[in-house]
Amino acid sequence: MAKQIGVIIDYLNDGYRRQIDAAAAKHGYTTRYYPDSASAVGNADECEILFGHCSQKVIASAASLRWYCCCWAGVDRFCRDELYQNPDCVLSNSSGAYGVTISEHLVMTALMLLRRQMEYTEIIREGGWRVLPGGIRSLRDLRITVLGAGDIGTEFARRARAFGPARLTGVRRSAKAGDPAFDEMRTTAELDALLPETDLLVMALPNTPDTEGILSRARLALLPEGAYVINVGRGTAVDQDALIDALNGGRLAGAALDVVVPEPLPADHPLRGARNLLLTPHVAGNMTLPYTQQKSISMFLEDLDNYAAGRPLLHAVDRKKGY
Amino acid sequence: MAKQIGVIIDYLNDGYRRQIDAAAAKHGYTTRYYPDSASAVGNADECEILFGHCSQKVIASAASLRWYCCCWAGVDRFCRDELYQNPDCVLSNSSGAYGVTISEHLVMTALMLLRRQMEYTEIIREGGWRVLPGGIRSLRDLRITVLGAGDIGTEFARRARAFGPARLTGVRRSAKAGDPAFDEMRTTAELDALLPETDLLVMALPNTPDTEGILSRARLALLPEGAYVINVGRGTAVDQDALIDALNGGRLAGAALDVVVPEPLPADHPLRGARNLLLTPHVAGNMTLPYTQQKSISMFLEDLDNYAAGRPLLHAVDRKKGY
Repeated sequence: MAKQIGVIIDYLNDGYRRQIDAAAAKHGYTTRYYPDSASAVGNADECEILFGHCSQKVIASAASLRWYCCCWAGVDRFCRDELYQNPDCVLSNSSGAYGVTISEHLVMTALMLLRRQMEYTEIIREGGWRVLPGGIRSLRDLRITVLGAGDIGTEFARRARAFGPARLTGVRRSAKAGDPAFDEMRTTAELDALLPETDLLVMALPNTPDTEGILSRARLALLPEGAYVINVGRGTAVDQDALIDALNGGRLAGAALDVVVPEPLPADHPLRGARNLLLTPHVAGNMTLPYTQQKSISMFLEDLDNYAAGRPLLHAVDRKKGY
Repeated sequence: MAKQIGVIIDYLNDGYRRQIDAAAAKHGYTTRYYPDSASAVGNADECEILFGHCSQKVIASAASLRWYCCCWAGVDRFCRDELYQNPDCVLSNSSGAYGVTISEHLVMTALMLLRRQMEYTEIIREGGWRVLPGGIRSLRDLRITVLGAGDIGTEFARRARAFGPARLTGVRRSAKAGDPAFDEMRTTAELDALLPETDLLVMALPNTPDTEGILSRARLALLPEGAYVINVGRGTAVDQDALIDALNGGRLAGAALDVVVPEPLPADHPLRGARNLLLTPHVAGNMTLPYTQQKSISMFLEDLDNYAAGRPLLHAVDRKKGY
C-alpha cells in the first residue's frame, strides 16, 4: 500500500499544493486532498499522515493514522487518547504560525479599549462629531501582564515594547527565561500578587485543566479599578459571569474577547450586552493572513522531514499537557 | 506694569498650575488663568505671553502680546501677520507633544483597516458570529509611506517598525535625514513615483499652501488597487470627493480620517456614507492623555527659560512656512 498524506486545508491554493506535493514525493508519499472534513470521514483509511483542519471524526476514523499535524494552535479537542485508533499516533500543532496575526489583534484591541474607540464608533454612527469627556489612555506608561508567554504572548510583547509601556511582565506555568521583550518573567503561582499592579491583562493560554477558569471572580477582583482584560486563548479561561459583572459594575474599564463559551455566541447571550466589551468572532488568528498560511505549511514540511528521518517532531504536542 | 502670562488650557489641574506658577515667578511674571477664550477676549491686554488653547479673537485683542505659545501642533489659524497687534509677536506650538498619542491612533486605525474591524463590529452588532470571506492583511510585509515625517510621522514609524513592514518610507518637503525607524527618506517631489508602490499611505502634514490638496484625485489614482489611506494632519490635504469615489468604486480598500473639511462634519455629509471609511472626530491628538498634557507644559516652560534669557525659542513656528 502506498504511503499517503491526507490534506484538509481551507486556504489551499496551487502554490501551497505544489509545495506539499513536492515534499511528499521526496519522501515517497502520495497526497490526497479533501475539500472538507465531512468528505474525509470514512475515506481516509489509507492516510498515514493527516495535515490541516480536521474534525475529530476524521481523526477517529483514520485507521492507519500515525501523525496528525493540526493547522490550529489550540489542539485541546485532539488530546484524548481514545480519539486515536493507534494509541501511539503523534499530534503536532501550528503554534508559532499565529504570533504575527494574533499579536496584531492584541495591539489593535488594546488601543481600541484605551482610546475608547467603541464609543467613538457610536458617536460617528449617530451622525455626531464630538470629543468624549473623561479622556483616553496610552500604552505608554501602562503596566501590562501577559498571561501565557508563548509564541503569541511573546510576539505581542515585542510589538507592545515599541509603545513604551511602564512594565511588561510575562507569566508562564514554570519559571523559564522569556524573550528580552519582557521586562520580567513570573510563574502562574505569582499571578495573584501581580494582578493588583496590572493595568492591562493579556491572556493567550491554551485550553488545559490548569487554565480553565484561571481568570476567576476572585482574580478579577484583584485587578485595579479601571483595568482592561483581553483574551485570545480559549473562552474557558475566563469566568464570563464575573467578567460581565466587573464590566457592568464599572470596576473594569473594558475588555476584549475573541474567544467565548459557547462559540458561536448566541445573539441573546448576556456577554453581548456587557459595557465596553469588544467582541470579535474568533478571528484573531485568522488563517487568511498569507504569512500565517505559509508559516503553517512550512512548519508541517519541516516536521515531515523529521518524521521521514525518524527524528522527533519540532512541533509535537504533549497530549497530557495539552500543548 | 507687572509682566503677565495669560493661560487658557482646558486640561488645567492643580499640579500643572503649580508648575506654571513656579516657572513664571522665577522669571518675574504673574499668571492669570482664564476659564476659556471667550472670557479672555478684551481682558488680556496686560498679557505679554499667552499660553494654551486661545481663539484667534483672544490673540487679536491682546494689545501687549509678544509671544503666543499654542497648545496645539497645527497653528495654521495663527500664521497671518495681520492677526497680531505687534508684528514681531513670536508664535510657538506644541509639535512634539502629540507624537505619542497620534502614533497610537495611527497604529490602531491601520490595524482596524487591515483586519476589517469595522465589518466585524457590524457582524457583532447584528448578533452574528462569523468569519468574513476574503481575508485580512497585516502590517508585516506592508509597504508604508509616511507623508510628513515630523514628530508624529516619526513616532508612528518607530512603532510600525516593530510589526515588520516590508518598507517604511518617510517623505519630507526637503531632503533631510530621517529617524532610523525609516528605511528611507524621500522628498515631496518624489511622491508620485512612490505612490504606486505604497500599500498604506499615512498623512501627518501641517496645513500650509503646499499641503492643501496634496492628495489630489490624480495622486489617489496612482495608489495601487487595494491600498489604504490614513490622514491625521489637516482635512484640507485630501481631495475628499476623489477619496469618496476611490472608496465607493472599490479602488481603495479603506481609509481613516481624523480630520475633515468641514469640522464638525455635518450628519448628512457624503463622507459619512463612504465604503470602509473609518471616521473619528479629530481625537487622534486627544489632549486628555496625561503624557501629552505634561509634555506640552514642559515644552512651554522650557521655552519660557529661553524667552526670559533672550534666546531663540526651541518650538518657534515660521509663520511664512506655517510650521
